[in-house]
Amino acid sequence: MSKHGNFFLENIPLDEAWSRFISALENVGKWNELPGEELPIEEALGRITAQPVWAALSSPAYHASAMDGYAVRSVDTIGAMETAPKRLAITPGGPASYVDTGDPIPAWADAVIMIEHTQHIDEEDGGESIEIHAGVAPWTAIRPMGEDMVATELVLPANHLLKPVDLGALAGCGHATVSVRRRPRVAIIPTGTELVTVEQAALSGLKSGDIIEYNSLVLASQVREWGGIPTRYPIVVDDYELIKSKVFEAAAEHDLVLVNAGSSAGSEDFTSSVVVELGTLLVHGVAVRPGHPVILGMLAGFNTPVIGIPGYPVSCALTGETFVEPLLSQWLGLPRREKPRVQATISRKLLSPIGEDEMVRVTVGRVGQRIVAAPLSRGAGVITSLVRADGIVRIPRFSEGVEAGQEVAVELYRDPSDIERTLVHIGSHDLCLDLLAQFLADAGRRFTSANAGSLGGLMALRRGDAHLAGAHLLDPATGDYNVSYVKQYLPDLPVVLLTFMHREQGLIVAPGNPKGIRDLSDLARDDVRFVNRQRGAGTRVLLDYHLEKLGIKPEKVQGYKREEFTHLAVAVAIQSGVVDCGLGIAAAARALNLDFIPVEKERYDLVIPRTHYESDLLRPLLGLIHGPNLRRAISGLPGYDTTSMGDVVFEG
Amino acid sequence: MSKHGNFFLENIPLDEAWSRFISALENVGKWNELPGEELPIEEALGRITAQPVWAALSSPAYHASAMDGYAVRSVDTIGAMETAPKRLAITPGGPASYVDTGDPIPAWADAVIMIEHTQHIDEEDGGESIEIHAGVAPWTAIRPMGEDMVATELVLPANHLLKPVDLGALAGCGHATVSVRRRPRVAIIPTGTELVTVEQAALSGLKSGDIIEYNSLVLASQVREWGGIPTRYPIVVDDYELIKSKVFEAAAEHDLVLVNAGSSAGSEDFTSSVVVELGTLLVHGVAVRPGHPVILGMLAGFNTPVIGIPGYPVSCALTGETFVEPLLSQWLGLPRREKPRVQATISRKLLSPIGEDEMVRVTVGRVGQRIVAAPLSRGAGVITSLVRADGIVRIPRFSEGVEAGQEVAVELYRDPSDIERTLVHIGSHDLCLDLLAQFLADAGRRFTSANAGSLGGLMALRRGDAHLAGAHLLDPATGDYNVSYVKQYLPDLPVVLLTFMHREQGLIVAPGNPKGIRDLSDLARDDVRFVNRQRGAGTRVLLDYHLEKLGIKPEKVQGYKREEFTHLAVAVAIQSGVVDCGLGIAAAARALNLDFIPVEKERYDLVIPRTHYESDLLRPLLGLIHGPNLRRAISGLPGYDTTSMGDVVFEG
Repeated sequence: MSKHGNFFLENIPLDEAWSRFISALENVGKWNELPGEELPIEEALGRITAQPVWAALSSPAYHASAMDGYAVRSVDTIGAMETAPKRLAITPGGPASYVDTGDPIPAWADAVIMIEHTQHIDEEDGGESIEIHAGVAPWTAIRPMGEDMVATELVLPANHLLKPVDLGALAGCGHATVSVRRRPRVAIIPTGTELVTVEQAALSGLKSGDIIEYNSLVLASQVREWGGIPTRYPIVVDDYELIKSKVFEAAAEHDLVLVNAGSSAGSEDFTSSVVVELGTLLVHGVAVRPGHPVILGMLAGFNTPVIGIPGYPVSCALTGETFVEPLLSQWLGLPRREKPRVQATISRKLLSPIGEDEMVRVTVGRVGQRIVAAPLSRGAGVITSLVRADGIVRIPRFSEGVEAGQEVAVELYRDPSDIERTLVHIGSHDLCLDLLAQFLADAGRRFTSANAGSLGGLMALRRGDAHLAGAHLLDPATGDYNVSYVKQYLPDLPVVLLTFMHREQGLIVAPGNPKGIRDLSDLARDDVRFVNRQRGAGTRVLLDYHLEKLGIKPEKVQGYKREEFTHLAVAVAIQSGVVDCGLGIAAAARALNLDFIPVEKERYDLVIPRTHYESDLLRPLLGLIHGPNLRRAISGLPGYDTTSMGDVVFEG
Repeated sequence: MSKHGNFFLENIPLDEAWSRFISALENVGKWNELPGEELPIEEALGRITAQPVWAALSSPAYHASAMDGYAVRSVDTIGAMETAPKRLAITPGGPASYVDTGDPIPAWADAVIMIEHTQHIDEEDGGESIEIHAGVAPWTAIRPMGEDMVATELVLPANHLLKPVDLGALAGCGHATVSVRRRPRVAIIPTGTELVTVEQAALSGLKSGDIIEYNSLVLASQVREWGGIPTRYPIVVDDYELIKSKVFEAAAEHDLVLVNAGSSAGSEDFTSSVVVELGTLLVHGVAVRPGHPVILGMLAGFNTPVIGIPGYPVSCALTGETFVEPLLSQWLGLPRREKPRVQATISRKLLSPIGEDEMVRVTVGRVGQRIVAAPLSRGAGVITSLVRADGIVRIPRFSEGVEAGQEVAVELYRDPSDIERTLVHIGSHDLCLDLLAQFLADAGRRFTSANAGSLGGLMALRRGDAHLAGAHLLDPATGDYNVSYVKQYLPDLPVVLLTFMHREQGLIVAPGNPKGIRDLSDLARDDVRFVNRQRGAGTRVLLDYHLEKLGIKPEKVQGYKREEFTHLAVAVAIQSGVVDCGLGIAAAARALNLDFIPVEKERYDLVIPRTHYESDLLRPLLGLIHGPNLRRAISGLPGYDTTSMGDVVFEG
């Protein structure tokens, strides 16, 4: 579309991209550790030693008393017994002299007797003595000079991350300062005419087409966390010359330049051309997903490496992990940070394109004997998929994907011990689950929730993928909820059905109800566009039940086939004006200031296999269900009724 | 000794001490999370949310194009085929309109066609069109409004530690600021007339009796690492009224007061009396070791908790971990930090007193199939035992200790993956091992070394506790080194014997050699005090060999029975004037500016079981032994000869 645009990205395997980058860095002497700078030790916490540190002084610097007591000559104590105590006069020259812990031992002494093992005597001549009832061996209760560190001894190696006790050791052997690696300086240049700062957005709201710029915040925070000093540039509009001048300026003052977005091959993607003009383009397009449109280059003049970082937030953050972190670690002399790994069972089938490594974000929990990894949204624009992720599953580029139930390796973002305190919910979506998660966190439990609809939740229980499933499945034959479904779908799994709450389902419509919708019969109207929930969702079962009662055929409902996966997504579709109404819960309508026409109060239960119901892991959940606090919080939300909360509806 | 001193410490079990402390905190409402403070999000990395955060805006805030391409109505594309393309005119009102990734979709459109799937046509009338060769379904290549976050939705729970992507999510849904927990303010008051700052020590050196104060540095760094704001007070001399006034002042302005040292029950231990006078003494003495003389108290007036922290550096640092960290975590709303744990085999017997929990510092490495934990020095004054520690083994107070080979749980200070890259050396001490460790670190390996003497190293190999053992054992019968010992002590273990270097052994004497010692025959002189090495040390074998050759009986040597465990410890004994000479290596003499009388050039080999010799783990070690860099570094040290480095002396 423009002179700078081209439609072709390379698809270079990750290893190959890295080795091109490293070679280029080596060629200009930039694949080395950064030099050291001398810092006062009290500012050196978390920094990395640039050189080995040798003790400047010994510690202790003299033979020191290890106790409060009396310095003595061991030979003077020989023969002292309970029945035949010895008396030693207290004078600075011996045979006994008081010492506090840490005091130097007098030159004439070679042992210390603990004060508790002596008896103090005031002699008649005005002098003082101690009486002792046992002899002591030479060097008793003495810390010899250099016990901890001997001057000239190695105290810390180079490339050592300084912990609190390390700083103590440095001071203890006489170092008031330490040489630590200079922190790498990283420039972060956000580009894009459509970008606005979050401060602007918070102050004046967003116009259509405005995008809040936060990739530079994520990158700057990553750089800081990995030991670098970030410089966040102000947003640069899509202007080739302007971007070029900013990149040039940044290269002079930084060890690394990150240009965010414009790294693809579209009409306003200037980064590759800028890199070509200012230096060498090494790589344009890496065979990973998310994060394909990555640029690796070397800027001439200052020989500053540059990375063009894709614009989608997930791609951006993962590109930071893949390319920026190892480079900073190299410069800082740190080993590459390896994430902890666990083997897990993937909860559903994932197709993956051949030719690209794919990084799938997953939540992870232990369900019974298995560790289960549940994939999150794969959209590169969904930053919350990274926020919620417990780890990453890599599907290598020569694989077409993984089957449900297959064993996969998960690189964890969190401590493996967190897995053991995680409750895994798969099932119907409800806002109260967020509240429950918050209460559980206070009780030391993590709660992960995957939205698969009521029936999807029962299937997950059958596969052993979840600890519990929220469900609100109406049985048209009986008018009851869930019980008949559990009997039908989980005939062999002993479960407990516990009521969580009742909630109002109804038609969500635009403010003021402009189409004058009164009830479900209006869904058959030609001028009413509806949005449905996905197959297996309890809300869809409810809809089908009522449509049949009203004698309305699904094909008569405009939009019956358009499916959304959550109540809020339905509400958004209405808010944006794309459709006129949808069936959902009152809370979702209230959240987006939409109108709500009640249809039915339905029961929402938690289905819990008995083995989990009786486990330690779920005990805090049952405590919350039966206690007053969660009940009070849910009652405060519009459209909820907690009267039956905690009732056991069925035990199978 | 003074009105404030008493000799009695309590011995309160850890659990009981904690529950007294918590009750006291609860009674004054201080066992709660601290309130929040509102921060700009760019300052919030690593802080903890004080409240749940709900989305202020939806993201995307409108239906957005997921690609660079053309917005179209899906109905207009029906029927387009490779053989029957459709042409759509480009105008802002449709049927086709160009959109960049992220642009809003026009109200009339419901899908986007990727630019790569279109052909641009300049019409004869001056207008422009695209030609398409396939139809698209509704919502193709569109990111619906709220795909990532819907306004009002829960984005982050309370008590959440903010990572880089979390800050992105906060900004993405319209938050320019976030409420995070206030950081706890912790006062650290070092007390002691004998204390000097490290700056003083570095500037003017130490007088006898001076102790460098660094506990406050360690505590301040711990507090910072755990999320608090430390205030390091200047050193306070041992003056009851002065300490009292500082504690009172600190209590007014801090959430917690730490008084370092003076927490025991000696003549200058004022802390307990100060706490009694200013508030309530809850605990004075906890049944843990190191760290027994701990004070827990509550200061009246501001209801500020106070902890009296013992003076020995290891006790101090561990008291921080035991009492300060959990309190800060509680105030910050974080779960108690659990260290990663591994099961390991303890490499030697440990006796432990009944009645106290003991925390033993250990190094940890995997040797073959077993993970081996090797105890470090148990002295509470040896800070380097914490610097070198990979973890802690707790011996509970009702146990008398553990047997060698027993399984123990280790709480790790480092990532469990580090264990897999650790080379475990047990054997003879030499300074070159420090150099080797430094080179190995650059090659991605950790090297831990326990000094057990040459024979001790062979025993460790026999038990399977180490990967390699340094040895310099002279066979008096043959004049050769190590081979006959390996045959005798490791008859069934296939090993490779590799020469590391030759080194000069000799008599270390005071500068100027005041006693005029000429050679080993002088050890029989009445006026010469000697210091020996421990049984099993190669240096001791060498001594015994020469004494026999000279016809000198051990009992004729003054100090034959006084044993030190390292060359440097021998040198320190001479430097301090306690003895006149000892047998050791030239480097140790040089390090402490002592004189050296050569006796023999001995061979120092590395004994390596063949399974380890051939393992990936040890490959970098062999690379270093056979390469030029390590050789060059060792040749640069006085008294070393690397001519035979890497020679295979024996394969068994």
